[in-house]
Amino acid sequence: MNVTVRGRTRHYRTVIFNPARNAVLLLEQRLLPHQFKIVAAKNFRETADAIHHMVVRGAGAIGATAAYGLAQGALAFRGRDLQKFRRHLDAVYQTLKAARPTAVDPVNAMDRVCAVMRTGRTVGEQQTLALAAAEEFASENVAHCEAIGRHGAKLIRQGMKILTHCNAGWLAFVDVGTATAPMYAAQAQGKKFHIFCSETRPRSQGATLTAWELAQQKISHQIIADNAAGHLMQRGEIDLVIVGSDRTLGRTGEVANKIGTYTKAVLAKRHGIPFYVAIPLSTIDWRLKSGFEIPIEERDESEVLGAWGVAVNSKFKYVRVANPTSGARNPGFDVTPPELITGIITPVGIFKPKELWQRRHDLGFAD
Amino acid sequence: MNVTVRGRTRHYRTVIFNPARNAVLLLEQRLLPHQFKIVAAKNFRETADAIHHMVVRGAGAIGATAAYGLAQGALAFRGRDLQKFRRHLDAVYQTLKAARPTAVDPVNAMDRVCAVMRTGRTVGEQQTLALAAAEEFASENVAHCEAIGRHGAKLIRQGMKILTHCNAGWLAFVDVGTATAPMYAAQAQGKKFHIFCSETRPRSQGATLTAWELAQQKISHQIIADNAAGHLMQRGEIDLVIVGSDRTLGRTGEVANKIGTYTKAVLAKRHGIPFYVAIPLSTIDWRLKSGFEIPIEERDESEVLGAWGVAVNSKFKYVRVANPTSGARNPGFDVTPPELITGIITPVGIFKPKELWQRRHDLGFAD
Repeated sequence: MNVTVRGRTRHYRTVIFNPARNAVLLLEQRLLPHQFKIVAAKNFRETADAIHHMVVRGAGAIGATAAYGLAQGALAFRGRDLQKFRRHLDAVYQTLKAARPTAVDPVNAMDRVCAVMRTGRTVGEQQTLALAAAEEFASENVAHCEAIGRHGAKLIRQGMKILTHCNAGWLAFVDVGTATAPMYAAQAQGKKFHIFCSETRPRSQGATLTAWELAQQKISHQIIADNAAGHLMQRGEIDLVIVGSDRTLGRTGEVANKIGTYTKAVLAKRHGIPFYVAIPLSTIDWRLKSGFEIPIEERDESEVLGAWGVAVNSKFKYVRVANPTSGARNPGFDVTPPELITGIITPVGIFKPKELWQRRHDLGFAD
Repeated sequence: MNVTVRGRTRHYRTVIFNPARNAVLLLEQRLLPHQFKIVAAKNFRETADAIHHMVVRGAGAIGATAAYGLAQGALAFRGRDLQKFRRHLDAVYQTLKAARPTAVDPVNAMDRVCAVMRTGRTVGEQQTLALAAAEEFASENVAHCEAIGRHGAKLIRQGMKILTHCNAGWLAFVDVGTATAPMYAAQAQGKKFHIFCSETRPRSQGATLTAWELAQQKISHQIIADNAAGHLMQRGEIDLVIVGSDRTLGRTGEVANKIGTYTKAVLAKRHGIPFYVAIPLSTIDWRLKSGFEIPIEERDESEVLGAWGVAVNSKFKYVRVANPTSGARNPGFDVTPPELITGIITPVGIFKPKELWQRRHDLGFAD
């Protein structure tokens, strides 16, 4: 999407491949929203490091980064010996996989690239195919987000006030995003609306990343404390909720997403406000039979006990907010049941949560 | 309640009068939880300044501080001329009232002290009566909180997990507090239980003040992000909710309290978890006929856009967390309707919200 740096507006993706330098260019997301910087990962090890240290984060974005990293590793190989090439490629694959061992997107992305490569007969052909496959993977990711936008934009009417939570924006994907896709599409259609970004403590992705995206895109928005959503709904100030999802259960319609999503859904239900979840097909889990099977990560308590920010004339730093002798509980995600969800916005259309299983073949499930 | 400083545990009130120095001693609440310090307001102007600059905060605490400040001003008068004394006292009253012009507690407290003083015939008698009335006011505040504790402690069973929001603890009163009173009373009865303090963004009173109180009192507790309450309820980890109130409507049973209270009440209702509000009688508003008449203060956006904390080797400071080019909405309070409230814990017993009006004479309403 658009980013304005020193008065100049340009379109960016979160991940860009530079073939001349055989480099993966990434938005340094750890500095956002306080500083905008593009960093170059000059070999596959640096690309793996960037994934590991969260220079790039978000399921779609790390998938594309790993796909490019694999192509980058393939292109760096010198020689014609296919067997040596395979061994080299295996090392590249394992290095990139180990960068975020619990994430499924890098593995899926690299498997896609590998399958395409295998159709090449020589090292040279396979190298060319690797890059083409990585580019296709990234562009497909963008196309899926744009399709979510086309379907979701119909839900947004002129003058609406919309609540979103956390960041399921273009920074988490290659471009466009999921929860933000309907907003960007509606903006392109000339609609005016207002977004409330809920702060999303403890890591504040709403206040930092989503607010930054919307500001860059010149969409009217305000940040609210997570505590304020109920009050605004009670006073009739929220018309629609759109969030993303880390994992959606295809069999039950349950949605796992950033902690606090469930609360927003409960509040929306009470006030009769439509609650939508925007997802790419890759986040549908067709295997699990209940939301209670989803492991809820308990994260480090330091996130709850303090905040990251910039002081006047100072660097980005952590401050301890809480009482120094108290500890914290920090569940990272929660699960929203289908009865609280009005619809799930996918690249192939909007479905009721319970329809996912019934429509599983359209949604990419192969049984 | 107890505070341990350098290994030594002592009992403190938030406001203490020192007759030998004619000084009002206050806990410097702006430094908590990072530093514990007692400051002396050496004359009524300094006492007014302390109220104004929020060295002391909380309805009960500023009421008692104003009562002591009035006595302090009275005691500083030299001479026997009753008319001059009255004029002096009027100046003291106006100075203390102006320190927090929208607060009702200082005015009510000072009016109580004035009424008692007027029964004295000489300046000397009135001075003595002023201090006695201020002391009585403070002790009555403590007694009311203790009575809330006695009634509320019955709700707390061994092993319970209890959620509270914001700070309605002893720091906001003279001692004991309201929402915390049942906890302190249950602890005195030997019960073991665990408290979740919800952080209470944007000002984080749960993470700072309530957590500090509970740590000092050696009550098992953890801080959670405001976003996490729903998830914990869903997983059966919360058995009871107790919060305070800034204003409770006697006619309707609606409760105005810190932003986010309504959300917790909605969640508790969904999960069948009892939701109690602990209040002193002075916060019951017998006049308003609807919660929508309660003005909801929109506070400065900087609270939502950043946080106050301490960095390593650094002073207490503000850091900007949010995107620098975004703004915020910051409603300070919300209103919880009676159907979400299991009971209201008062010094005279626990009532259903709708019973308040019916029991108004027991609750101090004079029509």
